[in-house]
Amino acid sequence: MPIDTPLCGLLGIRHPILLAPMDVIAGARLTAAVSRAGGFGILGGGYGDRIWLERETGKLKGAQAPFGIGFITWSLAKQPELLDVALAVQPRAIMLSFGDPKPFAPRIKAAGARLICQVQDEAMAQQALEAGADILVAQGSEAGGHGASRTTIDIVPAIVDLAAGRVPVVAAGGIGDGRGLAAMMVLGAAGVLLGTRFYASQECDGAEEAKKRICAARSGSTTRGIIFDLSRNNVWPAPFNGRCLINDHARRWQGREMELLQNVKAVAAEYAAARASGNFDIAAVIAGEAVGLIHDIPPAADIVERIAAEADQILLGRRNSSTALKA
Amino acid sequence: MPIDTPLCGLLGIRHPILLAPMDVIAGARLTAAVSRAGGFGILGGGYGDRIWLERETGKLKGAQAPFGIGFITWSLAKQPELLDVALAVQPRAIMLSFGDPKPFAPRIKAAGARLICQVQDEAMAQQALEAGADILVAQGSEAGGHGASRTTIDIVPAIVDLAAGRVPVVAAGGIGDGRGLAAMMVLGAAGVLLGTRFYASQECDGAEEAKKRICAARSGSTTRGIIFDLSRNNVWPAPFNGRCLINDHARRWQGREMELLQNVKAVAAEYAAARASGNFDIAAVIAGEAVGLIHDIPPAADIVERIAAEADQILLGRRNSSTALKA
Repeated sequence: MPIDTPLCGLLGIRHPILLAPMDVIAGARLTAAVSRAGGFGILGGGYGDRIWLERETGKLKGAQAPFGIGFITWSLAKQPELLDVALAVQPRAIMLSFGDPKPFAPRIKAAGARLICQVQDEAMAQQALEAGADILVAQGSEAGGHGASRTTIDIVPAIVDLAAGRVPVVAAGGIGDGRGLAAMMVLGAAGVLLGTRFYASQECDGAEEAKKRICAARSGSTTRGIIFDLSRNNVWPAPFNGRCLINDHARRWQGREMELLQNVKAVAAEYAAARASGNFDIAAVIAGEAVGLIHDIPPAADIVERIAAEADQILLGRRNSSTALKA
Repeated sequence: MPIDTPLCGLLGIRHPILLAPMDVIAGARLTAAVSRAGGFGILGGGYGDRIWLERETGKLKGAQAPFGIGFITWSLAKQPELLDVALAVQPRAIMLSFGDPKPFAPRIKAAGARLICQVQDEAMAQQALEAGADILVAQGSEAGGHGASRTTIDIVPAIVDLAAGRVPVVAAGGIGDGRGLAAMMVLGAAGVLLGTRFYASQECDGAEEAKKRICAARSGSTTRGIIFDLSRNNVWPAPFNGRCLINDHARRWQGREMELLQNVKAVAAEYAAARASGNFDIAAVIAGEAVGLIHDIPPAADIVERIAAEADQILLGRRNSSTALKA
């Protein structure tokens, strides 16, 4: 019996499992696969490469299963016309993260799409509600890629309490299995948004080497900071920084960020070359703390079904993992 | 119907809710109150003040309800004879945190007490299991006071997987209500250990002003670092540092820790005077991220009963908070 939450009705989905709109690597292929499986795929519009966006949204046009398209809000503000490219293919929702959603909300609503806003603290949540957000994503610091400092166990109940039942809250950050979905629902969330877990899927447009490193990584082997943003000349506005796997480059510059800045031209050239050649000892594998729970690269549909089934079992008490003590 | 987990049987308690052995402020009064309410009080033996320990353990001698006594392991190693003071009053368990428990495990076991080991990563958990730990506490970075960097949503499933059913795992860090207990059980924990929530209780030996500040504090208003340890000439071994409420002193020295060290004599004098006079603009209120969930200073028994009842309701599905959507 699938877990039914208010999120499912709002988005027209079977399982309250959302794909994080990971810049570039959450392309049409992964988005469609998650949606076909009954989750909610969200295309990674990211910084807004128009050619990429037109190509990938084109592939989603007319899709049977509902899907969404995500943007980095402060980046979309520089090219607001890209929202029209997104809305043209009739997504069920637009997800905005990292910035004030207010300037974009009226067009999104007028087009009949739901507005999903990802937030990292109460002030952002308040701003999103005032802009008319239909769904809030409360993102903890454990998340891969960009985010802020508050952790999942802290921010999820805080945003659930602030939302006070007005809109569903989706939990993000450090979640990679059915236990995580079930735990977040118990905390009051109506679903989860997963990035790293879907990175290690067959349909993700990430490098195979990056996927393998995610599978091999253990909990505790990621770090949040500004090093990879500095190294690619893409420093984000405060309070946002990024989480990635700890690699040689991260170890080299940890605690020496100002020195990196002083040498940024040479470092950026080295970093760009590493990205181009797929050298992940230098280029960052952008991933979150859920890496410890990820050991395979299955089709995205398997991930959706596996997590939904595990959470369902736990929540129905068929397998209360706290009573699984063997000794 | 109380939540029954393997922890309850091991410790002889009704509710899987443990009091964190907060140095000095978790005295005999709070310990006994938590235990009488059906939770498990653990006396805060901390750094091992012998006079304090003899007085407080004396008050617990012959108590009806089972209780524990906690030590800072690296500190106990300097005065190992204090373990005899503790064992003399027949605690149900000794809790060791922050250091190798192996040197103390045989005496604890020989005395018939359970060994509870608090850990912050997998290597520490492995070490604790090898020492014969009966119960592991997986402590996330959200916890008040001393701890390390891994967060609750990350470390709890990691330690549950590592323990693999051999011993129960208790979750600590950022938990302050029944939602938190229920969520941790869903993640596979057999109970929770709470510090900050019990700090704001009537029986806690903390300053009233500190308790009031915990009630007034919102989520996101604590910080983890080395400032208060530096300021009281009590720097801990890596990887441990401490979380407290952000106050004027924390704001003043944040990011200037080396400068603090260079001025440590003057700062330490100022800090000691502030502690003595209860000036919490300078002295730290040692508290965790659960502060956002704490708004009152009730008797400890009310806290135990409230959390147990809320978790019970959630886990029995009588109140699945994810379906409480009003709009």
